[in-house]
Amino acid sequence: MEERKILLNDSEIPRQWYNILPDLPTPMNPPLHPGTGKPVGPQDLAPIFPMNIIEQEMSTESLITIPDEVLDKYLLYRPTPLRRALNFEKALKCPVKIYYKDESVSPPGSHKPNTAIPQAYYNKVFGIKKLSTETGAGQWGSALAMACQMFGLECEVFMVRVSYNQKPYRRLMMMTWGANCTPSPSERTQAGRNILAQDPDCPGSLGVAISEAVEYAVTNKDCRYSLGSVLNHTLMHQTIIGLEAKKQFEKIGKYPDVVIGCAGGGSNFGGVSLPFVRDRIHGKKVSIIAAEPTSCPTLTKGPFAYDFGDVAKMTPLLAMYTLGHDFIPAPIHAGGLRYHGMAPIVSHLLKKELIEARAYHQLDTFEAGVLWARTEGFIPAPETTHAIAAVVDEARRAKEEGKEKIILFNYSGHGLVDLASYEAYFAGKLSAYELPDDEIQRALKAIANHPACIER
Amino acid sequence: MEERKILLNDSEIPRQWYNILPDLPTPMNPPLHPGTGKPVGPQDLAPIFPMNIIEQEMSTESLITIPDEVLDKYLLYRPTPLRRALNFEKALKCPVKIYYKDESVSPPGSHKPNTAIPQAYYNKVFGIKKLSTETGAGQWGSALAMACQMFGLECEVFMVRVSYNQKPYRRLMMMTWGANCTPSPSERTQAGRNILAQDPDCPGSLGVAISEAVEYAVTNKDCRYSLGSVLNHTLMHQTIIGLEAKKQFEKIGKYPDVVIGCAGGGSNFGGVSLPFVRDRIHGKKVSIIAAEPTSCPTLTKGPFAYDFGDVAKMTPLLAMYTLGHDFIPAPIHAGGLRYHGMAPIVSHLLKKELIEARAYHQLDTFEAGVLWARTEGFIPAPETTHAIAAVVDEARRAKEEGKEKIILFNYSGHGLVDLASYEAYFAGKLSAYELPDDEIQRALKAIANHPACIER
Repeated sequence: MEERKILLNDSEIPRQWYNILPDLPTPMNPPLHPGTGKPVGPQDLAPIFPMNIIEQEMSTESLITIPDEVLDKYLLYRPTPLRRALNFEKALKCPVKIYYKDESVSPPGSHKPNTAIPQAYYNKVFGIKKLSTETGAGQWGSALAMACQMFGLECEVFMVRVSYNQKPYRRLMMMTWGANCTPSPSERTQAGRNILAQDPDCPGSLGVAISEAVEYAVTNKDCRYSLGSVLNHTLMHQTIIGLEAKKQFEKIGKYPDVVIGCAGGGSNFGGVSLPFVRDRIHGKKVSIIAAEPTSCPTLTKGPFAYDFGDVAKMTPLLAMYTLGHDFIPAPIHAGGLRYHGMAPIVSHLLKKELIEARAYHQLDTFEAGVLWARTEGFIPAPETTHAIAAVVDEARRAKEEGKEKIILFNYSGHGLVDLASYEAYFAGKLSAYELPDDEIQRALKAIANHPACIER
Repeated sequence: MEERKILLNDSEIPRQWYNILPDLPTPMNPPLHPGTGKPVGPQDLAPIFPMNIIEQEMSTESLITIPDEVLDKYLLYRPTPLRRALNFEKALKCPVKIYYKDESVSPPGSHKPNTAIPQAYYNKVFGIKKLSTETGAGQWGSALAMACQMFGLECEVFMVRVSYNQKPYRRLMMMTWGANCTPSPSERTQAGRNILAQDPDCPGSLGVAISEAVEYAVTNKDCRYSLGSVLNHTLMHQTIIGLEAKKQFEKIGKYPDVVIGCAGGGSNFGGVSLPFVRDRIHGKKVSIIAAEPTSCPTLTKGPFAYDFGDVAKMTPLLAMYTLGHDFIPAPIHAGGLRYHGMAPIVSHLLKKELIEARAYHQLDTFEAGVLWARTEGFIPAPETTHAIAAVVDEARRAKEEGKEKIILFNYSGHGLVDLASYEAYFAGKLSAYELPDDEIQRALKAIANHPACIER
């Protein structure tokens, strides 16, 4: 019998996260202070993050020990299974073995708790009592709500109002885990009040919600802000995914030829791939592919530039591929991939050609997702269907090339509370949207006009 | 490190189901033909079920080999983990070790595929092209939809109209897995048309949906009906749960003092408990407890009698604990536990005092469920919270008695698409409903008036 699941026991869970910074062939461009244009120091970030997380963000240690208290919570759902998609392989009829790291098994159903849990822990030990954050569709907010509950922290989530009203399930998860969830814009912050004064019916946006969450953190005692992706420490926490996968491949004496993840802010992609990028830097032959939507083609169409992480221009300037901080992607169903920028680490790796990027439109991704659901059973999140579309693409290329390949991809989450997107797909309401060239030109111009933009 | 998960590899999956019938100290009362009052024979059931399933229903073999094709699909999500609820234990502060068999890891999120998959398989090999069934909240319909898709069968689901409209997520799962889902009552059957003629706005009921599904099966070529609980073969298929759990306990050199499952029709309870009931019959000391809602107290308040399995009186008469086939339980959120009767096997075991039953009201069960979600992370289905309430009850009894105990319970499903029930709980909209005595007397009278009723 061919094993469908490669499992690790609790005692085999990795005890350290992997930090890629010291392994990079050339150093990354540092984040810049938007006022001075100079690299930000730890003190610049202190009102927003606790110092122990800031130290992780800037650490040059290769391996960082996972605290026992974090391991204890990880073990509620980790190590996650590495599964073989035998039925999906049969349907594709291509010369590939497909393995997937199943991050959908966490309580909220995605990879997000991998960084929510350590962030809650480090804030707790730093003496923080409350975390604030923003959330769009609710994946990140629900993960942080759970993590805060586990460490006895309060949790304030500002949720984009239109999602708050239309997507109740993740809001209800946050409630069940004891978080306070406020539709944004709200009357609770100056940023929110300003917007409501202009437009009382404002549906909200991620940019507005970030502004509210950051303002809430800096104006409330013993409160800090928490971010679910993009930053170095979030990717580092997520490397538990790739580190476990490597152990699991070792168990069966195999190694992937291709590693695939979908990329929005970059955390699940970085999580699965960075330990394999390390091998590649050290000479191993492995292709690493980020899959993004054609409606938000940050890596495939954006320039590499210094840009703000948020619409409200409150973050430091980050060196990254970006479509411009004021870019608003089309309302595709993969909400977690609708981000104008990309993690600086992922951006740096693409720039250095250590990874590749490909864009897929949502008709292709849902087609791949439905084939997956009908062969493997599990219904993938809309974000995850982008990774599956890339797997199909790679499998067909392998067939054309007449090569046998082992593919690993990150199954970042399940779609059980995103089923309305499948309904829209079956009803023929989705389009194969690609961002038009003039939109891209407009985005590039916005960045070029910014004084901090460094290169194209 | 204390292991939180006891895992089985694919190769360790049990290869046989367990059939308790030959181990029973006294034989069960046979199902009776409602017309003749005589025991039903295989031919009586042939228009509804394929003969290979009828043979399983009546088999006296102790172990029945699981076909390779069924094992292949089981392996998509089985063996399921046996988990230790260390954080929940800490919160309870009682001298118990709590283990749970996690059946929420299946694609639709419940134990239902354990019987849906073999039922689809046996119909397929018998030459059937299509299965019909009914579903209330959608747990069973979604599981059968997935199973039919995997074996290339068509699937017709009649879903209670009010659930069809109010609970879209499981309906959308069925669509994603390729089933046709019709709100019931419908114009597609005579039974449905008759009801709509009287009441065009009829919200439907499980009884009506069963009538439609059975009529559809017997009037369509190469179509049969499929039932998700109650019958012997459904419980037998579910014994994979308890058989795996026994192997997992053997791995750690332990054996449970108490085995708990929630009970609606009896399939998840039977699935986890029957292999342990066998040990009890053979002299092992183990308590086995079925947890049911006080609003539908079939086992704790109903008489043991011959009664119909359905409102429409289309099924054979079954010897079971029952509140009467026309009993309509209060609309509690644990839809899967709103059944007037109970599996004849479970009923027989209670009558013979091989198991116990306890009833819990939904304020206690949601309180237990929220404590679970806030300590273990995972959000349980409303049905499953009844098992958790029984665990809390047993843990407190152990403390009172000053005894250390090992508790096993079946975590029958997750609550991610049932979160509206948690919202109602937090909003204070739920009551501690207990079925009043006069309602129970009325139900008893309805059964007593039926000529086939054999005992009280």
